[in-house]
Amino acid sequence: MPHDLPSPSARLLAVFDHITEHKEGFLRRLIDYVRHPSISAHNIGITEVAALLVGMLKEIGLDAETVPTSGHPMVLGRWEKKPGARTILLYGHYDVQPPDPLELWLSPPFEPTIREGRIYARGIGDNKGQHFAQLLAIESHLKVHGELPCNVIVLLEGEEEIGSPRIADFVANHREKLKADFVVTADGPMHPSGRPTMTYGVRGMTSFELRAKHASRDVHSGNLGGVVPNPIWTLVHLLSTMKTPAGEITIEGLHDAIVPPSELDRAAVARLPLDLDDAKAKLGLARLDAPAERGYYERLMFHPTLTINGFHGGYGGPGTKTVLPCEASVKCDIRLVEAMTPDDVLAKVEAHVRKHAPEVEFIPRGGMLPSRVPMDSPYGAIVRSAIELAHGVSPIEYPCTGGSLPDYVFTKILGVPAFVVPYANSDEANHAPNENMKLECFYNGIRTGAALLDRVGAPS
Amino acid sequence: MPHDLPSPSARLLAVFDHITEHKEGFLRRLIDYVRHPSISAHNIGITEVAALLVGMLKEIGLDAETVPTSGHPMVLGRWEKKPGARTILLYGHYDVQPPDPLELWLSPPFEPTIREGRIYARGIGDNKGQHFAQLLAIESHLKVHGELPCNVIVLLEGEEEIGSPRIADFVANHREKLKADFVVTADGPMHPSGRPTMTYGVRGMTSFELRAKHASRDVHSGNLGGVVPNPIWTLVHLLSTMKTPAGEITIEGLHDAIVPPSELDRAAVARLPLDLDDAKAKLGLARLDAPAERGYYERLMFHPTLTINGFHGGYGGPGTKTVLPCEASVKCDIRLVEAMTPDDVLAKVEAHVRKHAPEVEFIPRGGMLPSRVPMDSPYGAIVRSAIELAHGVSPIEYPCTGGSLPDYVFTKILGVPAFVVPYANSDEANHAPNENMKLECFYNGIRTGAALLDRVGAPS
Repeated sequence: MPHDLPSPSARLLAVFDHITEHKEGFLRRLIDYVRHPSISAHNIGITEVAALLVGMLKEIGLDAETVPTSGHPMVLGRWEKKPGARTILLYGHYDVQPPDPLELWLSPPFEPTIREGRIYARGIGDNKGQHFAQLLAIESHLKVHGELPCNVIVLLEGEEEIGSPRIADFVANHREKLKADFVVTADGPMHPSGRPTMTYGVRGMTSFELRAKHASRDVHSGNLGGVVPNPIWTLVHLLSTMKTPAGEITIEGLHDAIVPPSELDRAAVARLPLDLDDAKAKLGLARLDAPAERGYYERLMFHPTLTINGFHGGYGGPGTKTVLPCEASVKCDIRLVEAMTPDDVLAKVEAHVRKHAPEVEFIPRGGMLPSRVPMDSPYGAIVRSAIELAHGVSPIEYPCTGGSLPDYVFTKILGVPAFVVPYANSDEANHAPNENMKLECFYNGIRTGAALLDRVGAPS
Repeated sequence: MPHDLPSPSARLLAVFDHITEHKEGFLRRLIDYVRHPSISAHNIGITEVAALLVGMLKEIGLDAETVPTSGHPMVLGRWEKKPGARTILLYGHYDVQPPDPLELWLSPPFEPTIREGRIYARGIGDNKGQHFAQLLAIESHLKVHGELPCNVIVLLEGEEEIGSPRIADFVANHREKLKADFVVTADGPMHPSGRPTMTYGVRGMTSFELRAKHASRDVHSGNLGGVVPNPIWTLVHLLSTMKTPAGEITIEGLHDAIVPPSELDRAAVARLPLDLDDAKAKLGLARLDAPAERGYYERLMFHPTLTINGFHGGYGGPGTKTVLPCEASVKCDIRLVEAMTPDDVLAKVEAHVRKHAPEVEFIPRGGMLPSRVPMDSPYGAIVRSAIELAHGVSPIEYPCTGGSLPDYVFTKILGVPAFVVPYANSDEANHAPNENMKLECFYNGIRTGAALLDRVGAPS
C-alpha cells in the first residue's frame, strides 16, 4: 500500500538537528557504555551495568530505579509529566551473550573498536546500542524542548540472554508501574537490503521429550530380535501418528485454538519482499518442507510446527553393530501461532501419547505464548510513521516472525500492543564473534526513537 | 517324541573306557593348548597355534596342513582311509576373543586354572575346549581300534572371532578338499538345565544404513521451522512405511522367498522347553514385541526381523535446544529366514527407499545367508543318536536359532547338512571375563565326539 510519506514537525526537526550536531558525543558515550561487560550467563558485571543505567537515566532527566528480582534486577526509568498524553513503554535488555570464542574476534569484545563505519563490541547490536539509541532520543527531546511529547517508561531486563525466566512474573506483579498504551522493543536486525522493518507478532513455543524403554539392557539383535520390543520403533510409530509425510500435524485438537490470519495479515504478507531461489540457495535446500504448496511467509507466521530437535537411541558409531537397544529418546518443539497456549498444546500432546503409545514417557518442558497485534492497530500506524520520518522510507511490515520472544508479557499480561523495531544492520553478528553495528544504524536508531516519541505525543 | 535311547556298540564302549582312563592326560593336554593365546583381532599367536594344531593332528594320526588365505590360515586335517564309508566334516575355530577387561579375571586368561570343577581360560569354551574334545575323540578311536569308523575332515578357522571374512571364499575354492556328507560344529553353550542341544539352522542377516540431509547446516527451529525440511521426520516417515506398529514388515516383496516352517519344524518347536515368565523377567520386559500372538520360538526361528540398531540426529544433550538439524541417520539389520538372501533383501529395501523417500541415501552393508537342515535329515538322526549315547539323555532340538553363524558355507556352498552341537556349559562366559568350561562338559564332549564317529561309521 504505497502512500505519501509524512513530513517531520518543527518540533521533531529541531530534535533531528540536535542529534546531527551531537553525533560525536553520542558515539563516545555509546563506546563508554558497551565497554562494560554484563554477561548474564556468567553473572559478570550485571550489578555494575544496572547501576550505571540508573545513573544515566537520572542524568537524562528520568526517575529511575533498579527493581530486584530473584535473578538479575530490572532497570526501570519513567517520565510521566504529561497527564492525559499517551505512554509508551520502551523495552530492551542490558545483558549480553558471552563473547566466546574469543580467538575469533578481530578486536577484543569489550574494547569497542571502529572499523569501516561499524563499531565492533559484544552487545553493541544485541541490545545495548539499540536501547542506548532510545535513551539518547529521550535525552535529545528533553534537551531541545525541556519536556517529552508523551509519557515514557523504560524497562531494561538483565536476563534476556538466558531466556527471560522472570520477565513474565515481573510484569504480572508490576502492572501498575508498567501501565502504558503500547510497547516498542528495538532489537534484532533490519532487512538485508537496509530497509527498516517492524513486526506485529511472534510465534510462541513449547517443547517436550519422549522416552521409550523396554528391556532392562541392550540385547543382541539376532539372539532376541523378534522377541524384545525396540524403543526406537516405538518412538518412530508414535511420531508417525503425530505428523503426516504431507506435513499435516495430526495431534487431536492441536489446531483448535488457532486464529486464522486476517485479510490484512494476508495482504501484508503479499507485500513482503521474497527471493525464494536465493533463500533456498543460502540454505542448500532442494525444496521447502511439506506441504509444498504453502507460501514462504505463511509457513513462518500462520502455522504451528512440530520440529524434532533430536532423536537418539542405539548405536551411532562407524560400521555396524547388531544391537537391539533398550532405550531411546526424542526432543521436540512446537511453535505456536495465535491463540495457541503451551499448556493447552502440551495437554493435547500428552493425551495423544497416552492414547497411541501409553508405554512412552512424556516430559513437558514449558514454553512461551505467541504474541500478535492486529495490522490495523492505531499504534502500528504510529510506529510506521515514526520509521518513515526517521528513514525517509516505509518499513517492511511483518505480521509475525517465526522465532519466539516473550512479547506476550506485554500483549497478553499487560494487554497492550507490542512491536519490534530493529535498529541494527542485518549482519550485526549477534551472539557471534565480531558483533557490530553500523554507525549509520545507531544514528538512525536515535532518529527513529525521537520520531517515535514525537508521533506518540501527536494528537490522536 | 520320546523314544528308547540307543545302546553303545562294543566298539564304542571300548572307546568310552579309553576316555575314562585317560581323563587326567586329556585335561593336562587341554590346559597346555589353551595356554597359548591366539587372538585374531590383535593378530597375536595365530601362526604359532595353527602350527601347534597341525603338529597335534599329525601326532593323532591325521594328514594335516595349514592352508594360507589372505588373512589367517585355515588348519585342515583328514583321515580318509575308509573308501565307501561316510565322511564327516568337523568345523571349529582356533582363534579366541581378546581377554579385556583383564582386571575382571579372577585368574589370568592364559594361565588356565581349575576351580570347583571348571577350567578358567580365554577360549576354553569358545572354541578351543570344544574342538579339542573332538580331536581327542578321534585320537581315542585310533588308539583303541587303530582306525576310525568313518572318514573325517577337520577344518579349524583362525578368523571366526573377527566375523569369518574369508570362510565363504575358502569353502567355495576348496570344495574338493572339503567334500563330506555333513558337517558338525561343536560350539556355543548347552541348555541352562544341562541338557545337551542340537541345532538344525541359523537365521541369516543383512544390514544397511539410511541417511537424510536437507539444509547445508543446522538452523533455528523458530526462525526457519516450517520452511526447512527436517531429516529426522524424513527418516521417521520412511521407517513407518517399512514396518507397522502391529509388527508386520511392509517392504514390498521382502517375504517372497520365505520357506514356511514344516510340520516337523512346528512339532519340534512345540517340544522345546519354555518358561516365558522367567524369560520376560530376566529381560525386564512387560510384553514381547509385536505381533503379540506369535509364539516365542516362532519369533526367533521362522520370521525375519527389521531391527533399528541406532537412530541419531540433532540434539541429544540435557534440557532443550531449539534446533532444526540438517542431517540424521539410521542403522538397521534384518535377520533372514530360509530362503531369503542378503542380495535380494537389500535390493528390495533399496527399491522401497527409492519409492518412498528418494531423497534418502541407502547404504547396503553386506550380510550372511540363513542355513537350514530339514528336521528329518538322516544326518540329524545320527547326531541325535550320538548325543544320546554320550549323555544318556535326548538333546533339545532347535530347528533354528535367532542369531547368525556362517553355517550357510556348508549347507549352501558345499550343499551338505550342517549341525551345531554345543559341548560347553550354558554359563561358559564366552567373550567375557572368566570364560570357563566344566570338566564334565569337556569329558562329555569327547564322548559325544566319539559316539558321533561311531554312528557316522555305522551302516546306514
